[in-house]
Amino acid sequence: MRIGFDLGGTKMLAGVLDGENNLLGRSKAKTGGGGNDEVISQILEVTRAAIAAAGNPEITAMGIAVPGPIDIGLGMILEPPNLNLRNAPLAKILKQELGFPVVLENDVNAGLWGEYVAGSARGYQHVIGIFPGTGIGGGIILEGRLFRGKMGSAGEIGHITVQSDGRLCGCGNFGCLETVASKTAIARDLAVLAMNGRSPVLAAAGASDIRMVKSGLIAKALKAKDPGVAEVVQRAAMFLGIGMAAMVNTFDPELIVVGGGLVEKLGDSFLKAAETSMRARAMPRLVEGVAVKAASLSDNAAVIGAADLAGRSLAS
Amino acid sequence: MRIGFDLGGTKMLAGVLDGENNLLGRSKAKTGGGGNDEVISQILEVTRAAIAAAGNPEITAMGIAVPGPIDIGLGMILEPPNLNLRNAPLAKILKQELGFPVVLENDVNAGLWGEYVAGSARGYQHVIGIFPGTGIGGGIILEGRLFRGKMGSAGEIGHITVQSDGRLCGCGNFGCLETVASKTAIARDLAVLAMNGRSPVLAAAGASDIRMVKSGLIAKALKAKDPGVAEVVQRAAMFLGIGMAAMVNTFDPELIVVGGGLVEKLGDSFLKAAETSMRARAMPRLVEGVAVKAASLSDNAAVIGAADLAGRSLAS
Repeated sequence: MRIGFDLGGTKMLAGVLDGENNLLGRSKAKTGGGGNDEVISQILEVTRAAIAAAGNPEITAMGIAVPGPIDIGLGMILEPPNLNLRNAPLAKILKQELGFPVVLENDVNAGLWGEYVAGSARGYQHVIGIFPGTGIGGGIILEGRLFRGKMGSAGEIGHITVQSDGRLCGCGNFGCLETVASKTAIARDLAVLAMNGRSPVLAAAGASDIRMVKSGLIAKALKAKDPGVAEVVQRAAMFLGIGMAAMVNTFDPELIVVGGGLVEKLGDSFLKAAETSMRARAMPRLVEGVAVKAASLSDNAAVIGAADLAGRSLAS
Repeated sequence: MRIGFDLGGTKMLAGVLDGENNLLGRSKAKTGGGGNDEVISQILEVTRAAIAAAGNPEITAMGIAVPGPIDIGLGMILEPPNLNLRNAPLAKILKQELGFPVVLENDVNAGLWGEYVAGSARGYQHVIGIFPGTGIGGGIILEGRLFRGKMGSAGEIGHITVQSDGRLCGCGNFGCLETVASKTAIARDLAVLAMNGRSPVLAAAGASDIRMVKSGLIAKALKAKDPGVAEVVQRAAMFLGIGMAAMVNTFDPELIVVGGGLVEKLGDSFLKAAETSMRARAMPRLVEGVAVKAASLSDNAAVIGAADLAGRSLAS
């Protein structure tokens, strides 16, 4: 029995898994903003609640998926975005309190690995994962192994340039994929439609403030056939396909799995539009044999992936 | 003793190597356009001449670097560009004639591997190779191994989109890296400077015909301080850096090695301009520890790499 934990900026989720990655018990909470002590005691509470929900089995390892870059050796998050946790040797602290080994993993890598062992990517050996959300996360599985790069930061595909003279990105570069294909990119364009009244649904939801533009609202505005919304979403899907094509030409993968809240809420038509763009843009010979699938495990992906990676890491 | 062979569209080159990858004998010829029989008899002739030049040692394996995608299993070139060789099971034919095993490799992969075992990339484990020429070739070494993708086509980084609304590329896509950072991209802009007389050196060389724009001529026009030429070259270097930044963000590599005739002729200032652009564009945390080096083996890179890969392939 292993436990997987997904520590996000807004919520945290724990799950107990058996040897076949079946979820036996779960627990969750909203992530507090009070700093190291609060967040760590929340993690302990949610972890213990999940173990109790699974009937108090013996746990051999815990994997915890965290946002941003990590130092695997130190078991520490390096630059936690949207998470009030500073310089905490998280793995060490949790191990002391819980009594079993704890392994950190980047949340995008954990989510992709979950899809690989138990979701859409099962059975493939060369897989690229793309997760459009506030930014765009990426993960890489080559020859059946997670590829992390020289310091664990490989897969920042949200920051490849697709418009060399494009908009300023949060990373300091211009025209990154994130600036045109993320939920934030969509929100920025929709805010104008909300402000100028072209989309009543968005206006009613106060979407001129881009913080109000959640994936569910975008889906609702699309369904209402608000003028302009379809065009904005279609344009983001087109750009997402350009990023996917870059991955096809670079990695020659078997599968691109696309996940995250945006894809879950906008559904098949969004993914199909991105795939169409990808197939028009990638080299024909390379893209021919590439499958595109939606991620299938949703919130459980990172939980399952983190638990599985922790188990493997301790077995090796 | 192994023999490495670089089969190009304009010339072919063979070299005999000892166990430490020292070149003991070489031979070369201009590649003929007469079709399978002529090209194959040329390959045999040049191979035998190189063996003779090395003092007729016993050869255990031959690696042959060829342009374009290959079928490693069939030992066959799939879509040979600029090479009149159709549906030839090259490895099999050469083995029959020469009496030792022959292994095919894509020429960009072979060249990068040569730099890895005997040139600029020695001692690194995560290396991206970029070779701007008529197009832009790319090669990938991860954890000390050549990464080929699901069917041997990984590394087509000349065809990642950097200008989503850019020029039509030969591959059918728009705004590929090749359309703005290759020798062909430079030639296209310089042809205008030749035609309108802004560059006397280019005009005198008949460079309004882009086939006349070789790397050496670009270097000569730069040295003559022809107005406009520096700007065109600088712009290509800037775009090359954008492509390099995409590789940094995607792979988190230790080293980017840049080679090919353009870099050899334009020298350090061109590479420095590309590196400056790369460092401005890539994510700061990722690019900090990345080295950029010029390839050091020139024409010998693919010969050495092909021989070394053939030796390893037969040993495993």
